Amino acid sequence: MRAVDLIIKKKNGGTLTREEIKFLVSGYVNGNIPDYQMSSLLMAICFRGLTAQEQSDLTMEMLLSGESVDLSSIKGICVDKHSTGGVGDKTTLVVAPLAAACGLKMAKMSGRGLGHTGGTLDKLESIPGFRISLTPEEFFRQVQDISLAVVGQTANIAPADKKLYALRDVTGTVESTGLIASSIMSKKLASGASHILLDVKVGDGAFMKNLEAARELAQAMVAIGNSQGRKTVALLTDMDQPLGFAVGNALEVIEAIETLKGRGPKDLETLALKIVSELLLMTGLEKTEAEASERASRALADGSALDKLRAMIERQGGDSRVLDDYSLFPTAKKVIEIRSPKKGYVKKVKALAIGNAAMLLGAGRATKDDVIDLSVGVEVLAKVGDRLDAGDLLAIVHGNEKNLDEAVEMVKEAFEIVEEEISPNKLILDIVR
Amino acid sequence: MRAVDLIIKKKNGGTLTREEIKFLVSGYVNGNIPDYQMSSLLMAICFRGLTAQEQSDLTMEMLLSGESVDLSSIKGICVDKHSTGGVGDKTTLVVAPLAAACGLKMAKMSGRGLGHTGGTLDKLESIPGFRISLTPEEFFRQVQDISLAVVGQTANIAPADKKLYALRDVTGTVESTGLIASSIMSKKLASGASHILLDVKVGDGAFMKNLEAARELAQAMVAIGNSQGRKTVALLTDMDQPLGFAVGNALEVIEAIETLKGRGPKDLETLALKIVSELLLMTGLEKTEAEASERASRALADGSALDKLRAMIERQGGDSRVLDDYSLFPTAKKVIEIRSPKKGYVKKVKALAIGNAAMLLGAGRATKDDVIDLSVGVEVLAKVGDRLDAGDLLAIVHGNEKNLDEAVEMVKEAFEIVEEEISPNKLILDIVR
Repeated sequence: MRAVDLIIKKKNGGTLTREEIKFLVSGYVNGNIPDYQMSSLLMAICFRGLTAQEQSDLTMEMLLSGESVDLSSIKGICVDKHSTGGVGDKTTLVVAPLAAACGLKMAKMSGRGLGHTGGTLDKLESIPGFRISLTPEEFFRQVQDISLAVVGQTANIAPADKKLYALRDVTGTVESTGLIASSIMSKKLASGASHILLDVKVGDGAFMKNLEAARELAQAMVAIGNSQGRKTVALLTDMDQPLGFAVGNALEVIEAIETLKGRGPKDLETLALKIVSELLLMTGLEKTEAEASERASRALADGSALDKLRAMIERQGGDSRVLDDYSLFPTAKKVIEIRSPKKGYVKKVKALAIGNAAMLLGAGRATKDDVIDLSVGVEVLAKVGDRLDAGDLLAIVHGNEKNLDEAVEMVKEAFEIVEEEISPNKLILDIVR
Repeated sequence: MRAVDLIIKKKNGGTLTREEIKFLVSGYVNGNIPDYQMSSLLMAICFRGLTAQEQSDLTMEMLLSGESVDLSSIKGICVDKHSTGGVGDKTTLVVAPLAAACGLKMAKMSGRGLGHTGGTLDKLESIPGFRISLTPEEFFRQVQDISLAVVGQTANIAPADKKLYALRDVTGTVESTGLIASSIMSKKLASGASHILLDVKVGDGAFMKNLEAARELAQAMVAIGNSQGRKTVALLTDMDQPLGFAVGNALEVIEAIETLKGRGPKDLETLALKIVSELLLMTGLEKTEAEASERASRALADGSALDKLRAMIERQGGDSRVLDDYSLFPTAKKVIEIRSPKKGYVKKVKALAIGNAAMLLGAGRATKDDVIDLSVGVEVLAKVGDRLDAGDLLAIVHGNEKNLDEAVEMVKEAFEIVEEEISPNKLILDIVR
């Protein structure tokens, strides 16, 4: 077998066999296939796509390139939740304790990642003392005891995907449904959960800009998960405006806590409840949507979800007083209010612009060596459909010295205010089961 | 400017500017742009193509990456001829002396290349003593004195193309009209001739398998040449069966000599006369096709073309007695006749199979370090449309020890003989001016 022949096969629209995909992935990982052949193949895949079988095979070969987490020693149903990423997406911080409070096990390995703000791990690190590194024993015991843990990746999960993703990033081959689906699913499957809920973000602030592309990705991932015997469901959710109000690291944790106290933004609460309801249905813990929804809402209302977060923070060495005293979080030096210049309705809150502003302030990472400022960010207080008077608060920028003026300008321009009445964005756009 | 952004631009169907192409080509040559980015770009180009302007820009940037030959000191009109390659294509060995005998200057730099047989240089080296390395002074003086020289490339012609071609070869990105056209034309333009005749081969034994693709390539190359002020014409010619009878190195030189003596295969003679006629028309040395054709035929008939070959061999140190004594050429140890098993008409002589047989015998090079056996090859004596009786000679295989039986089998299977009458292949399929 020669790599160049397989590249030409894919270039000409052929379908790669499991054996061929194995040859390519293992050859790439062990260095027999050079970057320049792999990048040419990846570009051919961007044009030709991958069949469902190829995606499943690629996923499995990437998974098999590394370790998998065996959660079988944990009593109960281990679920996982993954978002394709968006601006202000702190959903995991709400969903994980909520799911745990509803009787599910959430043994979650999370990432740092690149983006407008840090990943879930970075956000959690804004809680003083919080440890994201647990030994495997600590991790398993914690999940057994309190039903949840959110930690950094310890196992060597899908190294082939890691190497391939780094190559895709610099060769213009990131955008490909088949490659994205295989990449995400190789890591999800390796993480060991039996039930996987995918939150595929759609819109200006998401990787997938339109519903059609997002649905295709969702269907691809659900097919891969189900083909490997893991019950997988995907929600398609709006990312044309930021989720919730807060975009930043500490700011988002505070918002997640508020949500667990029943005082969070409506959209974030709705999404978190929907995700947990779906997990309850998928796992069979509830039989009907009404019952599932009811159970999730109760766990939020009775404080048991907040208690789960408290327990997790304490088990992972964090200072749980933050739940009641937000001044213990890193705080930005400057707080700048942005007010509406006119009366009207909010037509758009451009998620990407808000994300870029947060990034400018130092909330995110452009390369993996960048250091995040956990205190900075943007609070988006007006959402699409809101009625405003001139002078009403649109947003609050939390910044330190870095790029403050530029970020403020960017946030101002993210709002589009018009005279005619505007309906709010629909949050849950579709569900792929 | 970042390479990855340009890759994505091309991936999305955009058009690269001259500045961007310059950035990519010079960055690749100087090592700032790694192979893995270039191969991904090349694959995107395979799918998206290049506009005429992009092809012209790429050609010029590859040309400018190295030296160009300045033929302005030579008095007369310098012409060049290039074939995209086929089985048994020894046309240059006939055309160069014929053009010289007709009053044109042929200062030709030729290659060795990979393929079923050696390149023109390898073929010429089957003449004892023939030197393909001349100093630039010797080269120019010889062209001035006798109107022709065929030498190896001395100048550092289009190193960017060389580096790119090596990459394309191993990344499945050879097949792309725009890339092929730019590659060929960068070298042709750098070689300095003012008039360029391209022989684009079409068929089973050629790179271009169908007339449509070949025409597209021809049009692309003619457009590039003309856009740079070089008069360029392309012939589209048949390569569904080998050209002439001989496929090999010494065997092809002998056939070229026979052709210059007026005793060559009809197709080879026709093609050589057509090429020289076109050159005479292009350069304005003749005004009408009839006059051009007449002048070329006369130079063949009166022996002046043969004299030009003799002069070239002598000036380049070769033993010109080979012209009259073919036993001075390297000779294979075994000669195996293949005869027709039945009566009928030749429907096909599969050029690729004959080429592969010659390759098996050692006539060609798979990698640049392979050593060629100049003596071996195949004489294809029956051509498409010929009427045969059982036992008539189809071919003669000239081999040494290497793969003889296998090659003989392959040659046998290259012939398709049927009962119904078959018309001969059309040789000149089209002309692009």
